Amino acid sequence: MLTRSDVKGDDSLVKIGIIGGTGYTGVELMRLLGPRSDASISVITSRELCGTPVDTLFPNLRGIIDLKFSEPDNPALDECDVVFFATPHSVAMQRVPKLLKAGVRVIDLSADFRLKDADLWQRWYGMRHECPELLAEAVYGLPEINRDAVINARLVAVPGCYPTAVQLGLLPLLENKVIAEDRLIADVKSGVSGAGRKASVDGLLAEVAESVKAYGVEGHRHFPEICQELNRVSTNSVGLVFVPHLVPMIRGILATLYAPLRAGVESDILELHGMFERRYRKESFIEVLPLGTLPETRDVRGSNRCEISISYSEQSRTAIIIVVEDNLVKGASGQAIQNFNLMFGLGETTGLMLPALLP
Amino acid sequence: MLTRSDVKGDDSLVKIGIIGGTGYTGVELMRLLGPRSDASISVITSRELCGTPVDTLFPNLRGIIDLKFSEPDNPALDECDVVFFATPHSVAMQRVPKLLKAGVRVIDLSADFRLKDADLWQRWYGMRHECPELLAEAVYGLPEINRDAVINARLVAVPGCYPTAVQLGLLPLLENKVIAEDRLIADVKSGVSGAGRKASVDGLLAEVAESVKAYGVEGHRHFPEICQELNRVSTNSVGLVFVPHLVPMIRGILATLYAPLRAGVESDILELHGMFERRYRKESFIEVLPLGTLPETRDVRGSNRCEISISYSEQSRTAIIIVVEDNLVKGASGQAIQNFNLMFGLGETTGLMLPALLP
Amino acid sequence: MLTRSDVKGDDSLVKIGIIGGTGYTGVELMRLLGPRSDASISVITSRELCGTPVDTLFPNLRGIIDLKFSEPDNPALDECDVVFFATPHSVAMQRVPKLLKAGVRVIDLSADFRLKDADLWQRWYGMRHECPELLAEAVYGLPEINRDAVINARLVAVPGCYPTAVQLGLLPLLENKVIAEDRLIADVKSGVSGAGRKASVDGLLAEVAESVKAYGVEGHRHFPEICQELNRVSTNSVGLVFVPHLVPMIRGILATLYAPLRAGVESDILELHGMFERRYRKESFIEVLPLGTLPETRDVRGSNRCEISISYSEQSRTAIIIVVEDNLVKGASGQAIQNFNLMFGLGETTGLMLPALLP
Amino acid sequence: MLTRSDVKGDDSLVKIGIIGGTGYTGVELMRLLGPRSDASISVITSRELCGTPVDTLFPNLRGIIDLKFSEPDNPALDECDVVFFATPHSVAMQRVPKLLKAGVRVIDLSADFRLKDADLWQRWYGMRHECPELLAEAVYGLPEINRDAVINARLVAVPGCYPTAVQLGLLPLLENKVIAEDRLIADVKSGVSGAGRKASVDGLLAEVAESVKAYGVEGHRHFPEICQELNRVSTNSVGLVFVPHLVPMIRGILATLYAPLRAGVESDILELHGMFERRYRKESFIEVLPLGTLPETRDVRGSNRCEISISYSEQSRTAIIIVVEDNLVKGASGQAIQNFNLMFGLGETTGLMLPALLP
Repeated sequence: MLTRSDVKGDDSLVKIGIIGGTGYTGVELMRLLGPRSDASISVITSRELCGTPVDTLFPNLRGIIDLKFSEPDNPALDECDVVFFATPHSVAMQRVPKLLKAGVRVIDLSADFRLKDADLWQRWYGMRHECPELLAEAVYGLPEINRDAVINARLVAVPGCYPTAVQLGLLPLLENKVIAEDRLIADVKSGVSGAGRKASVDGLLAEVAESVKAYGVEGHRHFPEICQELNRVSTNSVGLVFVPHLVPMIRGILATLYAPLRAGVESDILELHGMFERRYRKESFIEVLPLGTLPETRDVRGSNRCEISISYSEQSRTAIIIVVEDNLVKGASGQAIQNFNLMFGLGETTGLMLPALLP
Repeated sequence: MLTRSDVKGDDSLVKIGIIGGTGYTGVELMRLLGPRSDASISVITSRELCGTPVDTLFPNLRGIIDLKFSEPDNPALDECDVVFFATPHSVAMQRVPKLLKAGVRVIDLSADFRLKDADLWQRWYGMRHECPELLAEAVYGLPEINRDAVINARLVAVPGCYPTAVQLGLLPLLENKVIAEDRLIADVKSGVSGAGRKASVDGLLAEVAESVKAYGVEGHRHFPEICQELNRVSTNSVGLVFVPHLVPMIRGILATLYAPLRAGVESDILELHGMFERRYRKESFIEVLPLGTLPETRDVRGSNRCEISISYSEQSRTAIIIVVEDNLVKGASGQAIQNFNLMFGLGETTGLMLPALLP
Repeated sequence: MLTRSDVKGDDSLVKIGIIGGTGYTGVELMRLLGPRSDASISVITSRELCGTPVDTLFPNLRGIIDLKFSEPDNPALDECDVVFFATPHSVAMQRVPKLLKAGVRVIDLSADFRLKDADLWQRWYGMRHECPELLAEAVYGLPEINRDAVINARLVAVPGCYPTAVQLGLLPLLENKVIAEDRLIADVKSGVSGAGRKASVDGLLAEVAESVKAYGVEGHRHFPEICQELNRVSTNSVGLVFVPHLVPMIRGILATLYAPLRAGVESDILELHGMFERRYRKESFIEVLPLGTLPETRDVRGSNRCEISISYSEQSRTAIIIVVEDNLVKGASGQAIQNFNLMFGLGETTGLMLPALLP
Repeated sequence: MLTRSDVKGDDSLVKIGIIGGTGYTGVELMRLLGPRSDASISVITSRELCGTPVDTLFPNLRGIIDLKFSEPDNPALDECDVVFFATPHSVAMQRVPKLLKAGVRVIDLSADFRLKDADLWQRWYGMRHECPELLAEAVYGLPEINRDAVINARLVAVPGCYPTAVQLGLLPLLENKVIAEDRLIADVKSGVSGAGRKASVDGLLAEVAESVKAYGVEGHRHFPEICQELNRVSTNSVGLVFVPHLVPMIRGILATLYAPLRAGVESDILELHGMFERRYRKESFIEVLPLGTLPETRDVRGSNRCEISISYSEQSRTAIIIVVEDNLVKGASGQAIQNFNLMFGLGETTGLMLPALLP
């Protein structure tokens, strides 16, 4: 088969490095970036698979990526225009300062720069943060709320998959001050790819197929991230119950959000729906569904789109918002590329308008 | 293979008829009743498959059931001690009066006798109820709350799958008057067998695998049933938001219930957990999990058990109860047999203590 | 969200009609053709859903296709440059003659023009063929063998999903005359989308998940198609045992082919592997895997690629060829578009080089 | 919930030990043995989980098994009547001699005593066999062929899951000398539980769902076992191509076997079918399906039954036999218990006649 190798190498292309290319966010970055003509991946690192062709591990990239995994401290990273971290937490915080110093912009898909408070970070991740001085500068990469900051950022912290869905579903109501911020509930269902590509018993098909479970009820690391960000747009302090669930499918997140109206607020479904439509009218990746239509995760499988429906229980005076996204795309790598596009002026939707794979 | 045919026919056996044997609750009744030595299935009806051997349709019953489907108005039904209806709604209400008159006891797995209010039934099912005079007599067959009434019942209405899970998860807290009854939320996830065994595009594997969706947000037929029953144990009027979801698996229901404490009530997780343990201590099919343990639907696949966990969010003063059941067993046919056992004095757990199939 | 509607309408674009747009091959044609800038879909028909927006049925096409389904005999079809039939068999044969007369080229994804012998067609499809006079002209659209004929074709019959996989896996060995043509075995495994998007009990997730079965052992309609085409490249008459199986997944076909070497032929795995490499060296969509590497269907999910591995049992003197494809892409709509690209000089791989979705 | 603990302990019960209780064959042994009243599990060992209650790991056993995992060299094992090894290979061969000396009978579910030739074992398992002197005594525990030997055995080697299916499908034809033994093909599809309950990337749902693959084409450890056993009933030397495949489901094996008739043999489908019916007429666990009926793995999910269909291609003079079993039951733990029942005179089918779980 023909490969793209000989058409790459053009100096006008944005040069990309990816640290930690063997996980699901890594392969998804490559799937989405590989076919582009305005950017070129020049380094992909992996400690364990150093020297292995990328397409040996990920056959879907045959003909798309003809690089080998290189050692983690490949000096070519310093020559990149941007480096994506597709690593577990605690890797990026050790290496970002040196890259920034070398003039490389950084997009971190891990959790290292999402929280603004280093102590809070330490409490949830069980270790000291290595460069707390960068937390203030890091831009939380949810373009639908931080677009301007992203454009000029040196360092972007890509939101977690759950926080993306929960925030996009609650923002319009919080901004309009119609809901009781202290009584929010997020019941979220995720496919298993969210747990990553690592050896475990818990993720075996024989363990998780044909079953549903809740997990992390006592505390999930995405909880403080969600609260931090919701509090930035909320006048009152947010009180949230967040329960993630594991569902037997590979990709997809569906968040069912329950938001009671504030005491004294009069509203109805048309008005609530209008708040979402106005808020997201210009957003290319957010689809507010017509009243009466509910989303399914497969509507966005493999795509960077996010679909949102709004319902309303009059009896309970509660808005029910349902949000779907692909956890690996709008919940991770697609959103990272959306940030990348903004940072490098490449057109926010470039390379991200592929239709979902249905069925 | 050897079959059971020659060992049946004993007069001391309870004689069973099943109307509507071609659906999932039908085959599940037969799976659980077929191997028993204290009861004998003598008639299984099906309009479409009249004359077809049961085990041609359901090969798992080879050697267990050697009957053929017979016509729906088989007079042998009148000779039965009990008839199970495993039919869609509106069938049982047309045929129950005659059976009762013939001295046959009835266990209805459909929705015909679950609601006490014929007008409410008409509103949700879109047709007039044919024998409203029996609604008062019909016993709602949730043994954990109605055991005594079940024992003497002529007519039992087996609860729906969702109502079983939601009630079992909320009863202890409602009975102890610790939760705000007007602010309850039930976010429930179900496998697809709940939609029954009927030709449809919506249930195709190619449509529902690798996807999650909510449905019935605007109103699900189990909603009035849940409210009716919760209101029977609640001092104040219940306000419930109920959102069912479809999950890509065959069997299983997981209900995540959110119950805020009443204003003024002081409690903690230990006390809440204790309420469940006391309430269900003597129940053979209800397992209150130790604190910190969460259930999975596969724990009860194929079994009549129901597992319940209790968690508590101090910040939001909200109890989070998670309930799992097999929708076809404790949520339908197993519960029907639990009622049957009680009605005929056969020992409540007889034939129902099989371990779940794991993995 | 922004849609593509205003950028379409250019006269230089190839005008496309699709008859029967509500099935899986229909939505897949639209997913692949919708984003293209060199062609424009102007009509999509559906008898039942006439008037419904396409993206109401297929939400993945929101922002990609903003047409409504139109009536089946929409006169605009005659204005198209090409019409795709994504219909069940027997539709195309009734409508193709008129379209050809109107100067429209036709790409038929159904079975109507695959067999050259009208009597054979009648035997397998249980009805008389309506335009046997076109069978000779129709080009069998497997570009890897018929490329030149496709380029100039007025009428292309797109191969079935199973025949594509089986032929691609056997062609090099047949052409090299090394295998015993009368002793071939094709054991093929398919995802359930091959059965189409139509209401049925047999395709319910609750029926087909967690199970595997063979079907059509007594005779599958793809059998005569495979034999016809294999016989065209075989010196001796082909004897084939073909057993299709249904596997619990949405997309994908894996064919395991067993081909004993001819008596007297001496060969080895290196030589056999070389025959595949040489045969497919210039083919953009065929990937002959390195020795020792085996394919998985997910390697090509959503992609038009086909992967082939070759193994050899010395003890049994039998070549074992494993072929994977996406039944809806290389096995249907992708291959149709590959033909389309050739027919209209648009570059064979245009719009078809997207990486597979993995995981 | 009530448990069985107080009803156990009776001296008349057969005392059972299980070594290696944390895998899928272990939990399946307990599911099937736990409810029995004629036998009692007294020891279950696990190196890693020593001290953990069994039902913490396997919640389906709550109320069924109230033991804790104990250390691997628990002296109570010597007091058992029988010890099952549910371990990976190489464990049993180190411990069996001492147990036999203590008068304990052994049922080994691993591969240690399946092959009669220690050198062959070493070649396939990459280590020296530790007690080759017991290989001759060990009885290959396929009761359908070795029933008498099993009854008196001290040491039973339970067949592998693939070998069980392949042998049961070929025995009648080999015994009747109608097939060409040197040209057999076994194309076998298995659920993923066959790979066991151990941490791995390869078994993750995100890796194996929505995909099919072949594996072990170059050589699978069940191959020599199948050949050894087929050769015992074959007059001529067996030549077999064996290709196992992984299918995205938890349980189940479907073997599609292709057996060409010998040169000179005249037969037809009725005669071939009759050979199977006669061979298995008295077998409780083997169901020869009527002509024209094909099995599905779900027909036997959770059950010890094995279903077999026979088809015949006249053109290719080839018999096509399809066999389904549950790889964890008839392919492992159920078969082990069938052997146990025979060894202890408890009735071959005791505890094993449960209907499959369908759907």
